[in-house]
Amino acid sequence: MATDSNSTNSLKSKCSRTIYYGTFLQLPRAADIPATPTSPPKYRLIVNHGALWVSTADGRIEGFDWEVEDERGLHDLIERHGWTVDGEEGSEQSMRIVRSRDDRNGFFFPGFVDTHIHASQYPNSGIFGSSTLLDWLETYTFPMESSFGNKDNPNVAPPSAHTAYNRVVSRTLSHGTTCAAYFATIHVPATNLLADICHARGQRALIGRVCMDNPKTCPAYYRDESNAQSLAATQASIAHIRSIDPHARLLHPIITPRFAPSCTPALLSALGALAASTTPPTHIQTHISENKAEIDLVRSTFPDAASYADVYDKAGLLTARTVLAHAIHLTPAERDTIRARGASVAHCPVSNSALGSGLCPVRTLLDEGISVGLGTDVSGGYSSSVLEAARQACLVSRLRAFRDGNAAGEREKLSVEEALYLATRGGAKVLRMEGDIGGFEEGMLWDAQMIELGGVVGGEEGDGDGGNRGSVDVFGWENWEEKVAKWMWNGDDRNVKAVWVGGRLVHGKIPL
Amino acid sequence: MATDSNSTNSLKSKCSRTIYYGTFLQLPRAADIPATPTSPPKYRLIVNHGALWVSTADGRIEGFDWEVEDERGLHDLIERHGWTVDGEEGSEQSMRIVRSRDDRNGFFFPGFVDTHIHASQYPNSGIFGSSTLLDWLETYTFPMESSFGNKDNPNVAPPSAHTAYNRVVSRTLSHGTTCAAYFATIHVPATNLLADICHARGQRALIGRVCMDNPKTCPAYYRDESNAQSLAATQASIAHIRSIDPHARLLHPIITPRFAPSCTPALLSALGALAASTTPPTHIQTHISENKAEIDLVRSTFPDAASYADVYDKAGLLTARTVLAHAIHLTPAERDTIRARGASVAHCPVSNSALGSGLCPVRTLLDEGISVGLGTDVSGGYSSSVLEAARQACLVSRLRAFRDGNAAGEREKLSVEEALYLATRGGAKVLRMEGDIGGFEEGMLWDAQMIELGGVVGGEEGDGDGGNRGSVDVFGWENWEEKVAKWMWNGDDRNVKAVWVGGRLVHGKIPL
Repeated sequence: MATDSNSTNSLKSKCSRTIYYGTFLQLPRAADIPATPTSPPKYRLIVNHGALWVSTADGRIEGFDWEVEDERGLHDLIERHGWTVDGEEGSEQSMRIVRSRDDRNGFFFPGFVDTHIHASQYPNSGIFGSSTLLDWLETYTFPMESSFGNKDNPNVAPPSAHTAYNRVVSRTLSHGTTCAAYFATIHVPATNLLADICHARGQRALIGRVCMDNPKTCPAYYRDESNAQSLAATQASIAHIRSIDPHARLLHPIITPRFAPSCTPALLSALGALAASTTPPTHIQTHISENKAEIDLVRSTFPDAASYADVYDKAGLLTARTVLAHAIHLTPAERDTIRARGASVAHCPVSNSALGSGLCPVRTLLDEGISVGLGTDVSGGYSSSVLEAARQACLVSRLRAFRDGNAAGEREKLSVEEALYLATRGGAKVLRMEGDIGGFEEGMLWDAQMIELGGVVGGEEGDGDGGNRGSVDVFGWENWEEKVAKWMWNGDDRNVKAVWVGGRLVHGKIPL
Repeated sequence: MATDSNSTNSLKSKCSRTIYYGTFLQLPRAADIPATPTSPPKYRLIVNHGALWVSTADGRIEGFDWEVEDERGLHDLIERHGWTVDGEEGSEQSMRIVRSRDDRNGFFFPGFVDTHIHASQYPNSGIFGSSTLLDWLETYTFPMESSFGNKDNPNVAPPSAHTAYNRVVSRTLSHGTTCAAYFATIHVPATNLLADICHARGQRALIGRVCMDNPKTCPAYYRDESNAQSLAATQASIAHIRSIDPHARLLHPIITPRFAPSCTPALLSALGALAASTTPPTHIQTHISENKAEIDLVRSTFPDAASYADVYDKAGLLTARTVLAHAIHLTPAERDTIRARGASVAHCPVSNSALGSGLCPVRTLLDEGISVGLGTDVSGGYSSSVLEAARQACLVSRLRAFRDGNAAGEREKLSVEEALYLATRGGAKVLRMEGDIGGFEEGMLWDAQMIELGGVVGGEEGDGDGGNRGSVDVFGWENWEEKVAKWMWNGDDRNVKAVWVGGRLVHGKIPL
């Protein structure tokens, strides 16, 4: 987890651009996928070898050249542009080069987008006994979240919040997560601390103070005092986030009603109005239709609502910038409403399987035109890795395929490529950032990870890499599609050698 | 993956015993679990702190003392027994000490038992596209397995077999697998090579030459020539295994009809007779009821059989030493037959989810008295880690619980402790080795792993361990049950610091 971002950034800041040279893998944009009424879209890995250059000034991709075949071609490219390696400090033409290593099966890949993660629950990762959603909240989650308040000094986050939030940001960066939509807790100082940490560490993030004011469903020791206090606290947190990153280079506030049952109707409406009061409207995140007991609770808490989705819709909380986590058991009418409002879904397969919530019908959501991204849902999900979420999204889709039988079932399956699409461009679209992140087009931000699968087994580089090889074994006969499949199924943070957000190195070491 | 087993073993061989000191975790024997008609058995982690000593002569546990509280107590114990640290070479009383590290949340745990793994498919790990069982066999598996034959010199295994088999043994040892039931291929030289490698590397293993002679279902390029040739080749492989390990200290042959459809009835009966012809009867392993298309294939291939299980039963292949992989879709009558014969099941949840085969009803099998262990089923399963299999066994049981609804469903769930029971003692029982491995009773073999979860986050040891910490984060407030849950859900080979089989260090470094 060691980073040398400070020293490297100071080196980098002397250059006007960084040239990345080697293999670049990405998934195509959804609009580029031919879809037919009878078969799901077939995502194909885009494999390029060549050079791509990123401006230091704004962290965006200035251009690329996939005709650059070798070091000679790279040299020619550099000469053609008049660039100078590590040249005069601050000069317009100064540059540095970062290479992916062929001998270690290395490649550049878009950074992962985690569309749903509870930063405050990170210390509980892997602890949930045999519980399901509602008892898990009472037993493990609310006590942990409440510890982010500071009884001695309510205006300052407690030391444990520093430890937990620094750790979750370190861990997600180490897994290649360049952008995350975080739930914090109800506490303004700790929520603001999370924003400060993301800002300092350089992770792109949406930061949400959790709103929950319903005394009937929230424990006395962990809830907002009133809807007015909840709204005011939310505004205070939004103001802090905007003050530390006024141009929203990295941080966005996100309005976060925990879930319908934990909020009074008055609070839900106030939050909907708050989201609409800004231009563009502020992002919103919440949960929907995760578990059948939860759906029953919504029905009894909101007897006048037509459905779970209707509760949010009536409050103005279903917008084109709304992220709904889970969405497992939606009715067709609810899906219609969600699609009509342009709201999106954070699919959280690890959590859904671990809490026994069910198998989300991702294909149905996609077929109907709802945007879907992946969420780790720490700590309902035990892992902070989006790669693990991609893996489990595939597993869940195959278990649905089995359940639905051979004919209907085949359509349910997510391929490795589609799961990795959801982990990158899919997540970007959910957050309405698809023009900026998730791929390697010109003008997009350099939010990227450098992956190494390791040298060929038995080859010169085979067991090298300082014992830090990871679990993927490449034997030398695999094409890129097969290598990427091996990575998705067996990869982990050991394969993530470097991570950049907006052109800044935020994890690992740049290979020089 | 570096081992220093040679140097350490030569050091160790000078001592008559090794004293292990620190924290010992294990699961209770099934017989010790109070079961009631209404609730599943509640496995509780057994936590001991103290000293345990292992004889160098036979690798078995000579005794333990859970009253030893500290180094002073350890010193007293050693003095009481008259032992001498690294004393006179070969002396009766010479000993050495291995300690688990409290500051890194270290503990000793029984080695894992993998009851079903295709060693020859290891290079394909993570490659299966979106296929299901039968097309996966044709597209990926048979071509890979056939490459273990050597067209140039049929009496010698090809170099690729050396690479693959060395790798799979390295990997499984690094995951803490001290005993594995391996499927090899149809080739005798390569099967014997796998036995040689396990013997040399010190892994306890059952090694099976794969039998498949049915020209209607097996491809022409990869099948036995006839049932007589298949039987003779199997006998040749058994003879080799018994020749290199005549007292079966590490290796056992295991008769391995691939699965019913790939064998002629004549071959199945001949293999059943072969298994019964030795005392004790030779182990048997095969597949059963993994996938619905496969079950249909069995029905059409064996129109006279009452069921899939009946095919094996008629051939004498269901014995108390038979391991049946998968067993997802068995009928009640088939389960009755299997239980009556004392045959066991290798539950392979990773593979079952990855190939979309279904959710195995583990609780039903256990309730009915069938022994169940865990199998990685590489490469239907993408991971060679039994810990991953334990994790996914929990997930599958929770998805079954969801499907079956709240009342019936709760019973389906496997707790972390029960999954780890299946990974250790459960697997040992499946292989009829429960008196020798899977736990830490006196007289049992020291097949064990030393786990470290890493120092407390933010503490002195927090980010130490040479960057090789792994994915588990301990914050300091967790009890052992919680630490073990964190390990099961997020642990990997980085947490496995040392592995012993029969008292011999076979992976990692002994901390001195």
